[in-house]
Amino acid sequence: MAGTYKLVEIVGTSSESISHAIENAIADAARTLRNLHWFEVVEQRGTIRNGHVLEYQVKLRVGFKLERPAEG
Amino acid sequence: MAGTYKLVEIVGTSSESISHAIENAIADAARTLRNLHWFEVVEQRGTIRNGHVLEYQVKLRVGFKLERPAEG
Amino acid sequence: MAGTYKLVEIVGTSSESISHAIENAIADAARTLRNLHWFEVVEQRGTIRNGHVLEYQVKLRVGFKLERPAEG
Amino acid sequence: MAGTYKLVEIVGTSSESISHAIENAIADAARTLRNLHWFEVVEQRGTIRNGHVLEYQVKLRVGFKLERPAEG
Amino acid sequence: MAGTYKLVEIVGTSSESISHAIENAIADAARTLRNLHWFEVVEQRGTIRNGHVLEYQVKLRVGFKLERPAEG
Amino acid sequence: MAGTYKLVEIVGTSSESISHAIENAIADAARTLRNLHWFEVVEQRGTIRNGHVLEYQVKLRVGFKLERPAEG
Amino acid sequence: MAGTYKLVEIVGTSSESISHAIENAIADAARTLRNLHWFEVVEQRGTIRNGHVLEYQVKLRVGFKLERPAEG
Amino acid sequence: MAGTYKLVEIVGTSSESISHAIENAIADAARTLRNLHWFEVVEQRGTIRNGHVLEYQVKLRVGFKLERPAEG
Amino acid sequence: MAGTYKLVEIVGTSSESISHAIENAIADAARTLRNLHWFEVVEQRGTIRNGHVLEYQVKLRVGFKLERPAEG
Amino acid sequence: MAGTYKLVEIVGTSSESISHAIENAIADAARTLRNLHWFEVVEQRGTIRNGHVLEYQVKLRVGFKLERPAEG
Amino acid sequence: MAGTYKLVEIVGTSSESISHAIENAIADAARTLRNLHWFEVVEQRGTIRNGHVLEYQVKLRVGFKLERPAEG
Amino acid sequence: MAGTYKLVEIVGTSSESISHAIENAIADAARTLRNLHWFEVVEQRGTIRNGHVLEYQVKLRVGFKLERPAEG
Repeated sequence: MAGTYKLVEIVGTSSESISHAIENAIADAARTLRNLHWFEVVEQRGTIRNGHVLEYQVKLRVGFKLERPAEG
Repeated sequence: MAGTYKLVEIVGTSSESISHAIENAIADAARTLRNLHWFEVVEQRGTIRNGHVLEYQVKLRVGFKLERPAEG
Repeated sequence: MAGTYKLVEIVGTSSESISHAIENAIADAARTLRNLHWFEVVEQRGTIRNGHVLEYQVKLRVGFKLERPAEG
Repeated sequence: MAGTYKLVEIVGTSSESISHAIENAIADAARTLRNLHWFEVVEQRGTIRNGHVLEYQVKLRVGFKLERPAEG
Repeated sequence: MAGTYKLVEIVGTSSESISHAIENAIADAARTLRNLHWFEVVEQRGTIRNGHVLEYQVKLRVGFKLERPAEG
Repeated sequence: MAGTYKLVEIVGTSSESISHAIENAIADAARTLRNLHWFEVVEQRGTIRNGHVLEYQVKLRVGFKLERPAEG
Repeated sequence: MAGTYKLVEIVGTSSESISHAIENAIADAARTLRNLHWFEVVEQRGTIRNGHVLEYQVKLRVGFKLERPAEG
Repeated sequence: MAGTYKLVEIVGTSSESISHAIENAIADAARTLRNLHWFEVVEQRGTIRNGHVLEYQVKLRVGFKLERPAEG
Repeated sequence: MAGTYKLVEIVGTSSESISHAIENAIADAARTLRNLHWFEVVEQRGTIRNGHVLEYQVKLRVGFKLERPAEG
Repeated sequence: MAGTYKLVEIVGTSSESISHAIENAIADAARTLRNLHWFEVVEQRGTIRNGHVLEYQVKLRVGFKLERPAEG
Repeated sequence: MAGTYKLVEIVGTSSESISHAIENAIADAARTLRNLHWFEVVEQRGTIRNGHVLEYQVKLRVGFKLERPAEG
Repeated sequence: MAGTYKLVEIVGTSSESISHAIENAIADAARTLRNLHWFEVVEQRGTIRNGHVLEYQVKLRVGFKLERPAEG
């Protein structure tokens, strides 16, 4: 993976599952960041209502390649 | 979230998935604790039998609001 | 759980979910290690392609009982 | 400090400062727990509104002595 | 270990040894909590007087099964 | 808190107090980031001159909601 | 270091050494970020081929001063 | 300690004390691993029955020298 | 900051606030150590009496430059 | 515990037990440091010979009160 | 990286540099393990003699693919 | 390594490399401390100027044997 990479930290949410929260976070990050390459799960938490999980919240770091400005 | 909150640490179990273990833990905690508000995943482990997951065990901290005793 | 146990660290992968990655890792470890007893999740990460999770990667420690050599 | 002690985890809040959040948490815990003895700061966070701190949230562990049931 | 478990954090003390501090903490916790199941050592510290250990202090988490209220 | 959130890491400084360092960091971050939502304290340090604190430095993570590009 | 600072997380790579990976990461970050001030090493890893290090990968946090928008 | 070393992670058990659990783990590991050199305590836990410690469980990493295959 | 630095770990106390505890620790350390340069907060705890903070205790690492012995 | 405290980090050794290693470290530290007050266990490790523990090594932080120079 | 991977923990040594210690560890591990894929640096330490580094010691985790036994 | 050991925490600096920063720290510590025995790397950071590393800063713990005062 030659080159330099940047990581940004995001939190995805889902009322369904941890996996959906991860997928949602990555899909939203991909709207503005190109070349997303890998992710690392940092923290898992959520909110509760009436004795059930209302929302899963997963904190991720996602990495992508820094593009070099066109030279010339 | 004005007020004071208490956290208790619980371990939920499920033979199906991590998400079910979380749901089970919260549902059981809600039998005796009112106003559960949020949870934080602390640890994920489990038992194995015959090369398959027998049981998922998820340690959580769940937070709820301390109710003030009625004044007067 | 009298006796002595050994832990080995493995990484399971799946394109479907974290739970499948755990199941895959344990199934593959069970091909060569007898008596797998428990697992602990150490790290969760994965790869991304086109704004979606390409592969979940879950690092586990799995524990099994050290068998004593037959005496006599 | 002979004897056995118990710790409970609480989160105090204040719109003014970290110190007020600690004081509030301890005062509220003291309504139901006798003999609070010491505290340990576990986490400091808060909410933001309009570019200012709306609320400080401090997670504490507070320790108190387990009273033995009267014997006889 | 099907079911849901709760953990409480306690500190045991002993002038003799770390093991005695653990035993003391568990014995005291067992006065009010039924079905204690396992413990995890969190921290070991102590006090000193005249160049000798005056008291060992061991912080533990002890886990026990949440009993479901009788149904019916 | 449905939606996806981003966290950025900043260090605020103040010659007065930890709380001022937090307030300064958040006020400066709010100049360029809209919708700041919460913060987490990561590290507290500072510089010393002549036996007194010259400057408090507080490292924070601040979270804000990712706005979706207008659709249509 | 009065003012407010931002940190970004980057991963630098080099086939030669850890120090080259750090230098490469900082040089690439400096293409788009002005006033880089300090770095903190977060993680060191790499890839292996044929029993030799193929590539060193060093994760860094780099800090730089937030410039205030010109006033007036 | 020139040369290359390997560490393996084991859990020793004892109904008597933490020290016995460590000794048991090392004695069992020594049945199959030559040249055990040092150990590091990673985790201490155990099981409880009737308000007493039933079994101490100590997780260790033990290091030993990798022997080079005879050359020639 | 060319040269070599030493860090010492101290605990400051104050009945007023965390900031006062930090200031007190640094002022006392400065009585015997010259050239104190920076500090890092390691731990915050305190004692409680009658439901109020009796004393804040802040553990710090403070760094100072090692002076080279006069040569010649 | 009004006043300012200093901590020093030491490693005690014993061929007998962890507790002896702690006691030895504190007794040796007390030869040169007055007013030792408390200790915190940081790390436990040791050396192995012939499948048995040769030496327990316990890393501690020990705290003592900084004495103010006589004034006047 | 579809498939299942195993990690082993090794310590490499070198009198020259950290990089040489990493290279030595990997070269020695590659004598008995096929398909080494990546490494993670866990700990860096060393021994000192006469005020100079005598030996660098680097603890690594190295990962390699578990080969499936030939089927059929 | 029978006996009791003390650790001190130091930060070495170098404009050249991490290894030089370690060597510089140990050489400077050896001016006032006899019998330096081992070191542990705690933290690696540095300063940046003009997109290049200006100075590497490595925090170490160095251990040395406490000498017993001559008896008699």
